[in-house]
Amino acid sequence: MSSNQPDTVTKDLPRHPWDDDDKLHEECGVFGTIGVTDAASFVALGLHALQHRGQEAGGIVTYDPSHGFNSARRFGYIRDNFTSQSVMETLPGMLGIGHVRYSTSGSKGATQIRDVQPFFGEFAMGGAAIAHNGNITNAESLRRELIERGSIFQSSSDSECIVHLMARSLQKALPERMEDALRRVEGAFAVVAMTATQLIGVRDALGVRPLVLGQVGDGWVLSSETCALDIIGATFVREIEPGEMVVITDQGIESRRPFRQQSPRFCIFEHVYFSRPDSILGGRSVYESRRQIGVELAREAPVDADLVCPVPDSGTPAAIGFSQESGIPYAMGITRNQYMGRTFIEPTEQIRNMGVRLKLNVNRALIKDKRVILVDDSVVRGTTSRKIKEMILDAGAKEVHFRIASPPTAWPCFYGVDTPQREKLLAATMSEEEMREHLAVDSLKFISLDGLYRAVGEANGRDNKCPQYCDACFSGEYPVEPADMIEKGFELKAAE
Amino acid sequence: MSSNQPDTVTKDLPRHPWDDDDKLHEECGVFGTIGVTDAASFVALGLHALQHRGQEAGGIVTYDPSHGFNSARRFGYIRDNFTSQSVMETLPGMLGIGHVRYSTSGSKGATQIRDVQPFFGEFAMGGAAIAHNGNITNAESLRRELIERGSIFQSSSDSECIVHLMARSLQKALPERMEDALRRVEGAFAVVAMTATQLIGVRDALGVRPLVLGQVGDGWVLSSETCALDIIGATFVREIEPGEMVVITDQGIESRRPFRQQSPRFCIFEHVYFSRPDSILGGRSVYESRRQIGVELAREAPVDADLVCPVPDSGTPAAIGFSQESGIPYAMGITRNQYMGRTFIEPTEQIRNMGVRLKLNVNRALIKDKRVILVDDSVVRGTTSRKIKEMILDAGAKEVHFRIASPPTAWPCFYGVDTPQREKLLAATMSEEEMREHLAVDSLKFISLDGLYRAVGEANGRDNKCPQYCDACFSGEYPVEPADMIEKGFELKAAE
Amino acid sequence: MSSNQPDTVTKDLPRHPWDDDDKLHEECGVFGTIGVTDAASFVALGLHALQHRGQEAGGIVTYDPSHGFNSARRFGYIRDNFTSQSVMETLPGMLGIGHVRYSTSGSKGATQIRDVQPFFGEFAMGGAAIAHNGNITNAESLRRELIERGSIFQSSSDSECIVHLMARSLQKALPERMEDALRRVEGAFAVVAMTATQLIGVRDALGVRPLVLGQVGDGWVLSSETCALDIIGATFVREIEPGEMVVITDQGIESRRPFRQQSPRFCIFEHVYFSRPDSILGGRSVYESRRQIGVELAREAPVDADLVCPVPDSGTPAAIGFSQESGIPYAMGITRNQYMGRTFIEPTEQIRNMGVRLKLNVNRALIKDKRVILVDDSVVRGTTSRKIKEMILDAGAKEVHFRIASPPTAWPCFYGVDTPQREKLLAATMSEEEMREHLAVDSLKFISLDGLYRAVGEANGRDNKCPQYCDACFSGEYPVEPADMIEKGFELKAAE
Amino acid sequence: MSSNQPDTVTKDLPRHPWDDDDKLHEECGVFGTIGVTDAASFVALGLHALQHRGQEAGGIVTYDPSHGFNSARRFGYIRDNFTSQSVMETLPGMLGIGHVRYSTSGSKGATQIRDVQPFFGEFAMGGAAIAHNGNITNAESLRRELIERGSIFQSSSDSECIVHLMARSLQKALPERMEDALRRVEGAFAVVAMTATQLIGVRDALGVRPLVLGQVGDGWVLSSETCALDIIGATFVREIEPGEMVVITDQGIESRRPFRQQSPRFCIFEHVYFSRPDSILGGRSVYESRRQIGVELAREAPVDADLVCPVPDSGTPAAIGFSQESGIPYAMGITRNQYMGRTFIEPTEQIRNMGVRLKLNVNRALIKDKRVILVDDSVVRGTTSRKIKEMILDAGAKEVHFRIASPPTAWPCFYGVDTPQREKLLAATMSEEEMREHLAVDSLKFISLDGLYRAVGEANGRDNKCPQYCDACFSGEYPVEPADMIEKGFELKAAE
Repeated sequence: MSSNQPDTVTKDLPRHPWDDDDKLHEECGVFGTIGVTDAASFVALGLHALQHRGQEAGGIVTYDPSHGFNSARRFGYIRDNFTSQSVMETLPGMLGIGHVRYSTSGSKGATQIRDVQPFFGEFAMGGAAIAHNGNITNAESLRRELIERGSIFQSSSDSECIVHLMARSLQKALPERMEDALRRVEGAFAVVAMTATQLIGVRDALGVRPLVLGQVGDGWVLSSETCALDIIGATFVREIEPGEMVVITDQGIESRRPFRQQSPRFCIFEHVYFSRPDSILGGRSVYESRRQIGVELAREAPVDADLVCPVPDSGTPAAIGFSQESGIPYAMGITRNQYMGRTFIEPTEQIRNMGVRLKLNVNRALIKDKRVILVDDSVVRGTTSRKIKEMILDAGAKEVHFRIASPPTAWPCFYGVDTPQREKLLAATMSEEEMREHLAVDSLKFISLDGLYRAVGEANGRDNKCPQYCDACFSGEYPVEPADMIEKGFELKAAE
Repeated sequence: MSSNQPDTVTKDLPRHPWDDDDKLHEECGVFGTIGVTDAASFVALGLHALQHRGQEAGGIVTYDPSHGFNSARRFGYIRDNFTSQSVMETLPGMLGIGHVRYSTSGSKGATQIRDVQPFFGEFAMGGAAIAHNGNITNAESLRRELIERGSIFQSSSDSECIVHLMARSLQKALPERMEDALRRVEGAFAVVAMTATQLIGVRDALGVRPLVLGQVGDGWVLSSETCALDIIGATFVREIEPGEMVVITDQGIESRRPFRQQSPRFCIFEHVYFSRPDSILGGRSVYESRRQIGVELAREAPVDADLVCPVPDSGTPAAIGFSQESGIPYAMGITRNQYMGRTFIEPTEQIRNMGVRLKLNVNRALIKDKRVILVDDSVVRGTTSRKIKEMILDAGAKEVHFRIASPPTAWPCFYGVDTPQREKLLAATMSEEEMREHLAVDSLKFISLDGLYRAVGEANGRDNKCPQYCDACFSGEYPVEPADMIEKGFELKAAE
Repeated sequence: MSSNQPDTVTKDLPRHPWDDDDKLHEECGVFGTIGVTDAASFVALGLHALQHRGQEAGGIVTYDPSHGFNSARRFGYIRDNFTSQSVMETLPGMLGIGHVRYSTSGSKGATQIRDVQPFFGEFAMGGAAIAHNGNITNAESLRRELIERGSIFQSSSDSECIVHLMARSLQKALPERMEDALRRVEGAFAVVAMTATQLIGVRDALGVRPLVLGQVGDGWVLSSETCALDIIGATFVREIEPGEMVVITDQGIESRRPFRQQSPRFCIFEHVYFSRPDSILGGRSVYESRRQIGVELAREAPVDADLVCPVPDSGTPAAIGFSQESGIPYAMGITRNQYMGRTFIEPTEQIRNMGVRLKLNVNRALIKDKRVILVDDSVVRGTTSRKIKEMILDAGAKEVHFRIASPPTAWPCFYGVDTPQREKLLAATMSEEEMREHLAVDSLKFISLDGLYRAVGEANGRDNKCPQYCDACFSGEYPVEPADMIEKGFELKAAE
Repeated sequence: MSSNQPDTVTKDLPRHPWDDDDKLHEECGVFGTIGVTDAASFVALGLHALQHRGQEAGGIVTYDPSHGFNSARRFGYIRDNFTSQSVMETLPGMLGIGHVRYSTSGSKGATQIRDVQPFFGEFAMGGAAIAHNGNITNAESLRRELIERGSIFQSSSDSECIVHLMARSLQKALPERMEDALRRVEGAFAVVAMTATQLIGVRDALGVRPLVLGQVGDGWVLSSETCALDIIGATFVREIEPGEMVVITDQGIESRRPFRQQSPRFCIFEHVYFSRPDSILGGRSVYESRRQIGVELAREAPVDADLVCPVPDSGTPAAIGFSQESGIPYAMGITRNQYMGRTFIEPTEQIRNMGVRLKLNVNRALIKDKRVILVDDSVVRGTTSRKIKEMILDAGAKEVHFRIASPPTAWPCFYGVDTPQREKLLAATMSEEEMREHLAVDSLKFISLDGLYRAVGEANGRDNKCPQYCDACFSGEYPVEPADMIEKGFELKAAE
């Protein structure tokens, strides 16, 4: 159905068994700044701090009055591509935006450099660049409509819909054109955009994806997370509000409300896994929320054991919390090889078969003859959990108890997170007890949805009438209808 | 004035003093095939044979029912980019087109990979790829108009105008959309294009740029020159006629006439320099035409001397003809370093200053004390001619006589040839005698325009009422008005 | 003085301010295997597990009866260089050795690929390859002597001395030649070597550097650490003993004693920092030793505070122990950017100045208004400690207390560890209190030498008459005289 | 028998069917200079001019008092490797030598960067670098002897024998050590070498391989051919004499005679094919000698025909001579694709099968219905000749007559030329008439050995008692016994 466009430059980044394909993956991070000397360096630093949100590729666009718009887009890490003088000096200016990506909904198989954001368009009124984190749930029907009218798409990226809608808007100025365009768009997204004089930030009406505002000297910063403010010494000002559009110029910040107001539904999985532990989300330390999840888990699902071990690195804060609440000693029973990267490309058969061992090793002397509680952030397909359990038993553990810092992941996310199809999710087809048997462990417990809400500060747990967060991956309740997916046959949860 | 679009991937290919920047350069070669196994290999071979028409970059698009449209575009030689299994296997299919380019009219400074053809667009009716040789003389005004209406350009290439015009055509089928688009376009061009099932070839109404049709097995081939038929063992069928559009499917060839009929004006410089000597143009061997130019030149401008030496390699056939007509022995007095490429990038100061010597060396033992006739194909800026003369005199020649196998090049070409601005053309500001003095040689003679016409088979010379060829670079008579250039201030030759 | 040899292939890997140049660095890891299918893959996996011992370069040599000796040596990580089929299939055989290196004593400035081990020599009796971890303290005088006699050195590596000594040995068989050679060599080293049929392992008489023996199927393994046995599923057999040479063939293991017997002096810093926490050294879990250091430190230097935070990642086990002993909660107050590598090459000025922030970020929400104990493994120059302290105070901490998991590092190591010159070591010129003032922290305490010995299992602490370990970096007592360095002017500690 | 040394850095340059593997290949070119500013640039230019003598790899060593000896060695063309500032500025100094190579006798299969010359050794008296063109015919027995004595070889290059012999010489100064070494060496070689203060040139006693002396400003130049003097504007002084060793310092030139005197035997094939046509050998223009071969050939083997066509490019001068002597018109019936390189690596099956067509194309319009004389420089295996004949007949030629500008090549060269094994040489197993039948052409004639001697200036032809040239490849008379080859079973021509 979807046509196969010709490549500009293709780079295959195959996923191997030891890649985290047993995790959900945030698909993107965005960053922008205005009013600073050498904006590109700031954007590069910000993106480096956001690298956990996307490792496949990154891009930066800047604007400078004497050189116009300039851009560089590359596969690979920010640290490898956006640090040399030779690249950075092609990106002059005091205004710039950038993007890191994991993979977009559009890309089947190989990603192409033209799909790497920011995306640029030249309009009758001048140029604009745009980058987004999230997903446009009606992108395919918008795309069909635009092609019918004569628009030519150069990428498979959602963002390009926004740019074509802007090109066809009857408004003059670019922010108004963007408002026009965003009103046609459904989904969950945080956008940073720029014109020759403006830095623009937008969060969708539900505020599913994060976006924060910071200040550095006389300049301003927009970022997916606060940890990217810290790296450049910017101070945190506030979150962009759900449904808010900010237009920042050298005259200051103007706030607009292009969307119909709704009650917010921030993504609860950002607290569980996506965001960096040193970021602050909704006024809360992510590290502290995760530690608190461990505390709740120790209360909900206690077990007698000798050691609490995190599955590194994402299970660490919850394991610390579990240990503190339960009094069972915390220990690093599993060591992560810090030289493991995404780049074990084309391995030999022998290496391919070693899977998890390349990445993780059990501390045998510590584990032998012990009853071990393993704390992990989530179970997706369950493949990694199985392998870790085997490593622990091989090392001589007497008992293995899994404690999971999130409820069972039973539904795919359509809002900018890379999830397997529903039938690949272990929790979509098995009960907790069936999963325990499947993993063949002594016990397996997930935190309850209410427990999770309590850990992130909702003392009364989830408000089932009007949930405070988007938790579709756990509950199957999608706050925005995934139109393109339904058209492709995805079935929503039956009303209860 | 024109805004600076952000780069996708940029690669700087600076031109150095020893580059042939004292030559006119054909800007492109095109090739397409349908109905053959592994079309991409045939296209690669064809482009390799057309490499003299453009060395900066090349691209291939193919279509295969199970993989859709596929493309690869690269900077550098075909032999270096389109030969490995890893690249070629990404280009499956029995239908493909390709392009080699020198540089397009749009690119100032660095070329960008997105400017490399073929250009691809996805339309409501399916995809199409297009590549052209030549120049659209009203591209800039078309572009402005399309942007006003909401089209987003991704390259600075002329071809993209055609694709956007096609996208907005009210016709359904792609060939009809292309006819619609081509009717809006002015200039001189040979186009190869493809849809999922069709190979399309078009020559502009005047037939300025060449395009030939060949047959290989059950398949068909379109190519800028016949030498690219030879390399794949295809047989030459006929030239595409001026103003003709052929649509080739597995049902055969359909010929259409989208343009108003005009008398043809084939580019005469293809005979003088652009085409390969083993190609056949208008039924004539290019080698033989060039040899005949030498014969005419020996008749028009005889001189008493000891040796006739070509300036390698393009002056060789005319020098052979001059020798045969004059009886003065032919000798290779100047040797060309066959390991010289375009790739002496970033040379040291010392190397930069050696200019011509890196490329050419005089055979001192042969030249010493001789009266030498040097036969070259053209004089553009005159810089190379001066250096060659100096080398010959340094080697001890007694006299140096230049014989030039084309008339004085006094006007820029706007039909797909890279020429300096008019004021940089030696012949634009000097008479033949002034040029002789400037070059400080014993004699300097250009072939007359009539002599050139005779050499290419027009026994009565040029028909000044209705010239048989486009010879604007010599005569200043432009068969298509260069609209964009006039808007930028170019002044046509005053009517006489 | 030292002559400047011409390069073969040079690759500059500059060290930047944010590189761990405020740490001591192990210089090498070695690995070898015999009697396994596809030895090269095992060696690659083993070296990947030993990557923390050297990240600059790696090399593998294998032997196969039909292809002879084969080798590949590369700059960069094992995962990037020794995983593709194309490289690995050039390394056939059931017998192989490998090496990772940080930098050798010989290299000033740029390292050269010819300095990368294993080193190969062809002798009258056949070929042999050799790799070592450690340092030959009389390498320079040996080198001078060998050159006088007509040996031609191709590298600046210590190992090459051993190979030339072997070449000139009057013995026939290679193991005997190696014994001859090793008897001339002074210093601390663990050697793996191979001939066409033998895998050889040697530890110097004091056993300063580690080397262990493992078994996998019918094959044998030698490795610097046990964590590299785990990755290939090998079982740990025993440590090679100080002064022991093992010669392994398909007939089994033969143990020899080429050196005069001495009491062992294993490097105590392997426990503190060099080895991986999941390795077992001298029968003890490294992780457990480090945790115990934290326990001892909490006893020796208690302080009232709110949080115990490790300086990631090396301070983590000691911080856990400190927390457990003191009852002060453990928290991850500092987050390490896991995408930081050694490859931020050629950064812009702006990036260069951010130093530690690129690598570490403080969890502000956690630290604010807290009294914080920071546990780090060592203080070398003190530059990183200062920056971390500033980050912590910027984040709003009320008090900062440093607890260091090793005694003051006051002396350089000459046994295969990269240490700054003595005057650059903070502890060489300052007392503990002066260091506290220099770092401007509320308190600073190092573990005592006796405390460290207790933590690694010596219940009575250090035996000052006959110390159980090499602790020269703390005590200034060098068990092997550093002859070359003394010749260059290094002054030993005055006898007390 | 010969052991397989491990690689340092390997780069495979496979030879494909369209490579000139049907030619004999000169294996090397050497160049050196002293007393000039920026010697490395001069060496790079000289090597560029000598690139036809070896295209696989090149290397440069320079010496500068403040940086010592510096070197860079690379696979590929000089123009691609030795032109950038970044490489050239690593090669400071007023004294340097360089080398281009095709492949050395030692390398089977892949070449290794450590085999690329110049070769460097550090001796008790200081360093020396050395590069040679030619072959040491007793290299293998020398190597065995040196290894027995404890020398360690790092390459498979002949030159390394010389360096090890120098290292073991009892002489003090390096030129004396080199004299010592060269007296042990048998074969045909031209050497350039350097110490920190001396540029040294040597020709073997027979003077088989060429070496010339030039002067540029206050500096001196040594080069394999005079064409490399021209490129840097140096004047030709004289040839180094057979058996002469020159030692050039800033004090001037000293000439030594280390060898027993013999009558010279310069390689006659340098005139036929190896040297560039614009070089001067033994006082004669190479171009003129080749043209004269054509003249002799037209006298010895006339034939009635319509056209004389060279097989490009090496047959050109002889074809011109043949045309001039016979009166039959000269024509370029075969066009060479100037974009063909050695780099069509890993081609697809389809491309691989096109062989010669990628490189050569017939000018059909010219050839059709003509009787064609093809002039080629030599016939080695005969494979290319067959393909060219087929192309010519396909194009419609009525008759094909081959005229070969050298006698039948019936014997391999062991003096630095890459020749197939004897049984692969067409002329080793067939008479002239059998070869004509094998090639299926209308006639085939080789120039006689006497005719060749006359063409190069020996009016009375070959002096069979004491031949003036080395013509072993034609006559089987080897002036130096090929000791290593005889040991391996090569059978000399039976005495007649």
